[in-house]
Amino acid sequence: MNAVLKSVPLPDVQAERDARNLAIEAAGVKDVRLPVTIAMRDGPMPTVASFSMTVGIEAAARGTHMSRFIEMLESEADVTTPHRVRSLLSGMLERLGAASGRVEVRFPCFLPKCAPVSGARSRLDYEVTWDAMLEQGRQSFAMTVKVPVTSLCPCSKAISKHGAHNQRSLITITAELASDMPIEELIAVAERNASCELYGILKRADEKFVTERAYENPKFAEDLVRDIALDLARDSRVRSYAVEAENLESIHNHSAYARLRGRPGGAQ
Amino acid sequence: MNAVLKSVPLPDVQAERDARNLAIEAAGVKDVRLPVTIAMRDGPMPTVASFSMTVGIEAAARGTHMSRFIEMLESEADVTTPHRVRSLLSGMLERLGAASGRVEVRFPCFLPKCAPVSGARSRLDYEVTWDAMLEQGRQSFAMTVKVPVTSLCPCSKAISKHGAHNQRSLITITAELASDMPIEELIAVAERNASCELYGILKRADEKFVTERAYENPKFAEDLVRDIALDLARDSRVRSYAVEAENLESIHNHSAYARLRGRPGGAQ
Amino acid sequence: MNAVLKSVPLPDVQAERDARNLAIEAAGVKDVRLPVTIAMRDGPMPTVASFSMTVGIEAAARGTHMSRFIEMLESEADVTTPHRVRSLLSGMLERLGAASGRVEVRFPCFLPKCAPVSGARSRLDYEVTWDAMLEQGRQSFAMTVKVPVTSLCPCSKAISKHGAHNQRSLITITAELASDMPIEELIAVAERNASCELYGILKRADEKFVTERAYENPKFAEDLVRDIALDLARDSRVRSYAVEAENLESIHNHSAYARLRGRPGGAQ
Amino acid sequence: MNAVLKSVPLPDVQAERDARNLAIEAAGVKDVRLPVTIAMRDGPMPTVASFSMTVGIEAAARGTHMSRFIEMLESEADVTTPHRVRSLLSGMLERLGAASGRVEVRFPCFLPKCAPVSGARSRLDYEVTWDAMLEQGRQSFAMTVKVPVTSLCPCSKAISKHGAHNQRSLITITAELASDMPIEELIAVAERNASCELYGILKRADEKFVTERAYENPKFAEDLVRDIALDLARDSRVRSYAVEAENLESIHNHSAYARLRGRPGGAQ
Repeated sequence: MNAVLKSVPLPDVQAERDARNLAIEAAGVKDVRLPVTIAMRDGPMPTVASFSMTVGIEAAARGTHMSRFIEMLESEADVTTPHRVRSLLSGMLERLGAASGRVEVRFPCFLPKCAPVSGARSRLDYEVTWDAMLEQGRQSFAMTVKVPVTSLCPCSKAISKHGAHNQRSLITITAELASDMPIEELIAVAERNASCELYGILKRADEKFVTERAYENPKFAEDLVRDIALDLARDSRVRSYAVEAENLESIHNHSAYARLRGRPGGAQ
Repeated sequence: MNAVLKSVPLPDVQAERDARNLAIEAAGVKDVRLPVTIAMRDGPMPTVASFSMTVGIEAAARGTHMSRFIEMLESEADVTTPHRVRSLLSGMLERLGAASGRVEVRFPCFLPKCAPVSGARSRLDYEVTWDAMLEQGRQSFAMTVKVPVTSLCPCSKAISKHGAHNQRSLITITAELASDMPIEELIAVAERNASCELYGILKRADEKFVTERAYENPKFAEDLVRDIALDLARDSRVRSYAVEAENLESIHNHSAYARLRGRPGGAQ
Repeated sequence: MNAVLKSVPLPDVQAERDARNLAIEAAGVKDVRLPVTIAMRDGPMPTVASFSMTVGIEAAARGTHMSRFIEMLESEADVTTPHRVRSLLSGMLERLGAASGRVEVRFPCFLPKCAPVSGARSRLDYEVTWDAMLEQGRQSFAMTVKVPVTSLCPCSKAISKHGAHNQRSLITITAELASDMPIEELIAVAERNASCELYGILKRADEKFVTERAYENPKFAEDLVRDIALDLARDSRVRSYAVEAENLESIHNHSAYARLRGRPGGAQ
Repeated sequence: MNAVLKSVPLPDVQAERDARNLAIEAAGVKDVRLPVTIAMRDGPMPTVASFSMTVGIEAAARGTHMSRFIEMLESEADVTTPHRVRSLLSGMLERLGAASGRVEVRFPCFLPKCAPVSGARSRLDYEVTWDAMLEQGRQSFAMTVKVPVTSLCPCSKAISKHGAHNQRSLITITAELASDMPIEELIAVAERNASCELYGILKRADEKFVTERAYENPKFAEDLVRDIALDLARDSRVRSYAVEAENLESIHNHSAYARLRGRPGGAQ
């Protein structure tokens, strides 16, 4: 039966000519989930990625062939490095005959940590995105990390008899990269500039340590983005950066938020 | 044209007899969003509700008529009180000829607050659900409130030189009610048992107050659910209750969690 | 007691001078939820809005005063029109002494509809965002609508003996506006260019109508964004636009996606 | 320094006696994300899991030791089978001295598929949960699968000249198991009872096939849950089941929903 079905000539509607005279910036697939293995500094890390792949469509073509994106993902299913993501981008542009396009890969990433006093080992999870793009002949590659940290409020500490409100904050760094940077390094920039970093396991001696460290190291959302920006501005691998901090305030039901964008050695 | 279309006799597939001999526990509509006005203690409060409405289907019937649920919502669109939700339930059972059914209404609710020192006025948002049910001839009504609060860790305070980790926590109370209870009262049970309640606006003197109050009033997730349960167990309007506390830990990237269920005057 | 507490002079940490020499692009509050009333074409519509408010911070200042944003929201709590959002922006910039800033208001919006044959009345919900901005001396105002529609696949129809796969699609239009445009009009642009629009209530005669209309009107995601762009390109109130279509494919577990950006009378 | 810190005796607040005389049903950790490898029928499948672990707390104890849950997860990090989940449960109960408890593991699962005509290979993603519990001396194990499928409306097909509305539906099956069942089998029960199953890749001949198959196989949400229940009711490995179908209606902005619960050989 399949042989018969296969032999039926079927119209290719997507390949029709289009008379509307409007190029499309991006068409493709979104939220395709697949298992992948990421090459981390300490070795391969299996995880699950969500892919978006789009190409530009010239004015004369009606549409793109969505199944080809998935075929490419399936045949290069184990995409593991920024280099491989850039290859996927060029392969896609060639296969679909497109002059512009974008491949985004988002995945949770797990880093081993040792608790600061007990040394107890655990892993912490972060969201990472690799984003490869070709637009108007210019290729670019960006990495985004979402890093949960502790922030402790300088104002609350300064005005209170004892204690200070603190909370989980989410730091998002997007760095357009001129050359490769390990995921671990970009995450470390966020963590070392927070009131304190997070851990999976904290024994009592560790909990004392992180409580005191956060108390001695208060930061507003504004402080977090500035301190991180100072670090990024010194990194020659970074072409431009955006840093966001969102504090899930422990005293409010809304977030405090700050964002800073810039480029090393330059104005924002 | 519409007159012609209206006159075409169309088959009623849902009303067909079903031979599979399986009753369906619940069939209906989910996530229907509509504006409503809730009767609060201080007057009417406009908000937006999400409705789910389901009925039981006897073994012999193929399906229910989904459009009738929405017709009922549209004609009683301004459902505003537990009493009206129970009416909607009985109307639905009658209209759809069903022996069992359920109406759930979920909406954000806004309560005015005065900051503890400055008296600055703001509103805080909570999620509320009203859930009316008829099952095996027994009618019940439950109210759920989700209340964001501050929790401060007793262990962190006890072991640290200064400071203590704290965070936003989400308390969920579900109370099956024997008689009506204002939303405000169930929310108050959660807030007065937290390390501190939240506010929309806190001026500096208020921030000092809430910081110190939380520090002087440390609670584990386990403490939160027990202290709330003690209050609920004394309330004769409550037939049974479930209390959950989820702490968005400021030192971890996971939550600490506790749940307690019980009924006034009885074992759990 | 409050009088005593109020009289304590408390340090203003946010107002400290900052030595890091880095201006902050945006600092403020996010996800503040409040009830509002929107002025619709047919009269006032109560709903619930989520606000984000941010200001730029010059290099010399340490931070902004987060409580002031909420004070402004509380005192102008019933923000109801694009005009009022722009006022909120200027008031905020003045009160916080800022040279740049942004106010975003996002809310579900409900429009009445008559079913195409029976005339049955129901309301449909849409997400709307108003976004007022002052950046480098230039003021702008954008409106975004998220419109759920039916899309039916032209390829599936062309190659299949009968039927064609169709699905719910989400169309997102963002229009930067040179002059005011009613919400209803931007939503209508999306709906009239879909395979079919959605309804809350459809009686059987209506269901026949929308099924046949979608079948006779097949559209790819690429067609949706082009047809909408053609309409927007003719509208002199629109300074620039972005149109996205995301099809929750009924035959895949991922989305098909297209995006087009442009400006009336000009190249993209 | 760590040696000194480690030697400080720190109070164990969680281990204090509690005077409130209220046992806690469940206390522990929620949303702990870790990479795992699942033993599938065709071999090991790496993925990312989210864990919840809770224990009952007797009335006399103040709280549980949250760090121990994570230690257990880290040392048995590669939990891969229902058997291993049950071991994790018993290990947890022993280590925390608890008489009741629960371990839930939720993960995306990827199954290889061949497109029905072209044979093109792709993988589809499903959400799976394993849930091991000891309560009042009774041990139980349940598996939940969330399976995206196509549903095509029988009413729309019966009344329309051509076409029929269809959409992506989400089927959720929870089966309490008396003996082990491969994940693949429970997913297959959902897929073979849908209007059509989903695929990652469909070439044109495949798209024709699935379009026609769905058209020839119309199902209401009510039909889906009944047909699946008939299959489950014949499976001796299943102690009890719950089946839900949620249709992301292509003609509405809300879902149609049905749920059925039962047990093999018995009344519901």
